[in-house]
Amino acid sequence: MSTQDTASLLAALRFDAAGLVAAIAQQHDTGEVLMLAWMNAAAVAETLATGHVCYFSRSRGRLWRKGETSGQTQRLIELRIDCDGDAVLLRVDQHGVACHTGRRSCFYRAARDGALVELAAPEVDAATLYDGHHD
Amino acid sequence: MSTQDTASLLAALRFDAAGLVAAIAQQHDTGEVLMLAWMNAAAVAETLATGHVCYFSRSRGRLWRKGETSGQTQRLIELRIDCDGDAVLLRVDQHGVACHTGRRSCFYRAARDGALVELAAPEVDAATLYDGHHD
Repeated sequence: MSTQDTASLLAALRFDAAGLVAAIAQQHDTGEVLMLAWMNAAAVAETLATGHVCYFSRSRGRLWRKGETSGQTQRLIELRIDCDGDAVLLRVDQHGVACHTGRRSCFYRAARDGALVELAAPEVDAATLYDGHHD
Repeated sequence: MSTQDTASLLAALRFDAAGLVAAIAQQHDTGEVLMLAWMNAAAVAETLATGHVCYFSRSRGRLWRKGETSGQTQRLIELRIDCDGDAVLLRVDQHGVACHTGRRSCFYRAARDGALVELAAPEVDAATLYDGHHD
């Protein structure tokens, strides 16, 4: 997208007081919801420009290029915006696992019969993904 | 779930400074992401107790029983929690449309070829859903 196009898209977003919108990542072909994170205007612009998902890390206070440490990148298929512009849905192609625990999706625990149960085991050893921090 | 069970589930959630977690609603069988909203502890507890999704409306500052005005309710199939406990994924069966515009999903606009395009038209007339306010 050109700079002008990105500007018109950003104008449709309603960033919160911290300058962020919620971002849901969904595997484009299976429909699996992978994770929820946050984007500021720069993260949205970079994601559209590069075709690789970039979030804003609230804990680190900077842009977070998904997979920059772990290699578990997300290729953008399509960016969607919700009705009031304060959330985006990223239809992505997830390389490897989205969750820092080594699982495909961050939503791997479910409330069932009065307890939290794990729906999925790690596919990869989290220790091999990072040197001590998440991305 | 019993009160004790709900307490243990709530203990796994990490509510923000406003007492909220982000909540993604996904149609359980098709995988369609319907909306993003917010829940406080009372909304989570009520949702688990009744099997019908209850959010917390930030704009109205109170519990928001989805469909209370529009009739477009969400039956809970399963509640999932993400790795760091600050977001939940609600696998639901959506009755009718999730979006206050009359569309099935709130994420009906996509960035394509440098413009925002509408992916879906309203299925029902929004004016028939509400008497002047959203839910």
